[in-house]
Amino acid sequence: MSIITVAQGGVNSPAGFVAGVAAAAIKKPGRPDMALVVSKRPSTAAAVFTRNQVVAAPVIVDRETMAQNAHHIRAVVANAGNANACTGEQGLANAREMQRLTAKSLNCKPAQILVLSTGVIGVQLPMDRLAQGIRQAAQGLDAANGLAAAEAIMTTDTHSKQTAVTVQLSGGVVTIGGMAKGSGMIHPNMATMLAVLTTDAAIEAEQLQGVLATAVDRSFNRISVDGDTSTNDTVLLLANGLSGVALADETDVALFEQALAQVCLNLAHQIVRDGEGATKFVTLHVGGAASNDDAHRIAETIATSPLVKTAFAGSDANWGRILAAAGRAGVVFDQNQVSLDIEGENRLQLVANGTPTNYAEADAATIFAQAEFAIHLDLNSGPGQATVWTTDLSHDYVSINADYRT
Amino acid sequence: MSIITVAQGGVNSPAGFVAGVAAAAIKKPGRPDMALVVSKRPSTAAAVFTRNQVVAAPVIVDRETMAQNAHHIRAVVANAGNANACTGEQGLANAREMQRLTAKSLNCKPAQILVLSTGVIGVQLPMDRLAQGIRQAAQGLDAANGLAAAEAIMTTDTHSKQTAVTVQLSGGVVTIGGMAKGSGMIHPNMATMLAVLTTDAAIEAEQLQGVLATAVDRSFNRISVDGDTSTNDTVLLLANGLSGVALADETDVALFEQALAQVCLNLAHQIVRDGEGATKFVTLHVGGAASNDDAHRIAETIATSPLVKTAFAGSDANWGRILAAAGRAGVVFDQNQVSLDIEGENRLQLVANGTPTNYAEADAATIFAQAEFAIHLDLNSGPGQATVWTTDLSHDYVSINADYRT
Repeated sequence: MSIITVAQGGVNSPAGFVAGVAAAAIKKPGRPDMALVVSKRPSTAAAVFTRNQVVAAPVIVDRETMAQNAHHIRAVVANAGNANACTGEQGLANAREMQRLTAKSLNCKPAQILVLSTGVIGVQLPMDRLAQGIRQAAQGLDAANGLAAAEAIMTTDTHSKQTAVTVQLSGGVVTIGGMAKGSGMIHPNMATMLAVLTTDAAIEAEQLQGVLATAVDRSFNRISVDGDTSTNDTVLLLANGLSGVALADETDVALFEQALAQVCLNLAHQIVRDGEGATKFVTLHVGGAASNDDAHRIAETIATSPLVKTAFAGSDANWGRILAAAGRAGVVFDQNQVSLDIEGENRLQLVANGTPTNYAEADAATIFAQAEFAIHLDLNSGPGQATVWTTDLSHDYVSINADYRT
Repeated sequence: MSIITVAQGGVNSPAGFVAGVAAAAIKKPGRPDMALVVSKRPSTAAAVFTRNQVVAAPVIVDRETMAQNAHHIRAVVANAGNANACTGEQGLANAREMQRLTAKSLNCKPAQILVLSTGVIGVQLPMDRLAQGIRQAAQGLDAANGLAAAEAIMTTDTHSKQTAVTVQLSGGVVTIGGMAKGSGMIHPNMATMLAVLTTDAAIEAEQLQGVLATAVDRSFNRISVDGDTSTNDTVLLLANGLSGVALADETDVALFEQALAQVCLNLAHQIVRDGEGATKFVTLHVGGAASNDDAHRIAETIATSPLVKTAFAGSDANWGRILAAAGRAGVVFDQNQVSLDIEGENRLQLVANGTPTNYAEADAATIFAQAEFAIHLDLNSGPGQATVWTTDLSHDYVSINADYRT
């Protein structure tokens, strides 16, 4: 048996985590739009938030809560259908009320609750329906509700997103689970839209923050659907210690970090695959740059280029757009050193030394027509490399977002 | 009569400029795809090029030519249908050959010719057809061919783009004319796709470069269709002095600069209006920032946000996306100070102090449904301001670019 094993499940997989959902008619009547994830005993918590200057009320409240009380978190309450962003003092009061109402239902302190909201910006939460939803979700708490919780936080997502792994540490086995929602406004800067991660490992809050930051940087921060960083991006991780297993040494820390990164990457890839209008899953490898940062900047510029992404949608191996996007990334390189390969079932070199090879257009088109392919751009002038995952820009993306509120 | 007057015409409007065109089957057989703009006597020249690290062969050749011979330029030769970019040594040799063949037809030196190419990347120019096109264009040189030249450089443009103004200087009247092509890969960084400007004013090359750089920064550098900076962006300005009127004093320089900026801005706006798939012409004013640079960065981030641009396409006044885009521009500001107005035939405030006003959704939708409207984002925390012009992101943009090469 390998040390890290993928398990069925999600936030409910680690010991001592239960979930509840409610249909509170915040999004549309009749479908669940609230989720509550509760640890049976207080957890340490870590959180990573959006770097957007415009932040939603729940992000403000969670930052305060984490600063004061990261050692005793009991639950995360989330709603879909309303982002509670750009809602001013009233919105902030509503986020605090959401925290207070959840604490009351769970018989704990408001500072033990983290809040998440996702949906439309600039509309106040319907507090009466939300209060009812919190009561309903708290009444239905169950260890079997992880999937229901992942479904309840969906907005334009077409699939729910959850995953779990177990990892063999020196003191025993711990489990890490998680759920996420994504779809649009996906270009995380320190975090994606919303993700809730749970573990039964015993880890102090400060160390937990460190491993979460590392895992997020390798996963959620490496995906882009549309280049738009949200006002609500939040990744939360609760560790309740109920496995009785702590991180005993450096090896345990590294293993846990690796397992956590695997959970995050799995969820991040699910977000890309379910990106608004996405028909392609594209892995962008940039290598040979002066630094990893340079490589990452180039990969991000390619991943957000409308011309590159519409070429993906059209299955058109129009690699000139990839080189043109790389060239405007603000990174200095020698175009005559560049090589470009594409890889589906087979790998094909399109560009060597900055000029096209004698490849057959039909072979390139075959690869670009696949639902999943990789692009390897090598600047051949340094050790820097980065990988970013992205999608195409399709008619459906335009349809979804031109008509989002109608 | 005002000092600066808009005139009919284009590159042929100033004294001593003639143009010729040819159908060289570089783009599609049967339609003109080459243009030649010739000054009857050597001109001083100024040029602004793309800042993309990946630059097309004609940009490399023109940079060399301008460094050596900006005082004696005779002509600009341009082709559509092939960008001669990412074409390596062969492409560079072909650009030089294009220069040599044009010089031969005009009986001057290769270093007196500037070359422009636009179209698909990564394909070698068909030199035999190009040579024939140059001969044909040179044989048909005529002062009435300005419009035909503007038409010949179109790619996915649906309208040709030209304009001209006359300006009353202290020593007499001079004329400035210009043509441009745009449409896709429009997010100039020092220049737009291709523009050729002409004047019969007498101006030394160094001064000409200064006024061109200023005019371009106020016009072509303030538009965005899709955020993609091209490998070929070039603006050329030839001044042949045939009006006999020089810039005599600071007032003349300021007037000429203003008139030149007007020509550039007119062409830049024509490019936005004819952006690929564009159905809206949107003016973005950002004010109250700490600096003009901060305001410009925010305006550019809004102008390139797929979520904002699809909301434009859907006539959806989803202003939360505008604030979210502003917030990820990398500029620090206080979201609680922000106000947002939109303006069509009427002006309507949507956000004050970072929270929505009590506007009627129908009034906002009416403005966003107009083909032309303005957005005023005020950070209310400084003197910095910037204006950027952009378009929506429509289904047609996706169609045009998914199927560009098929």
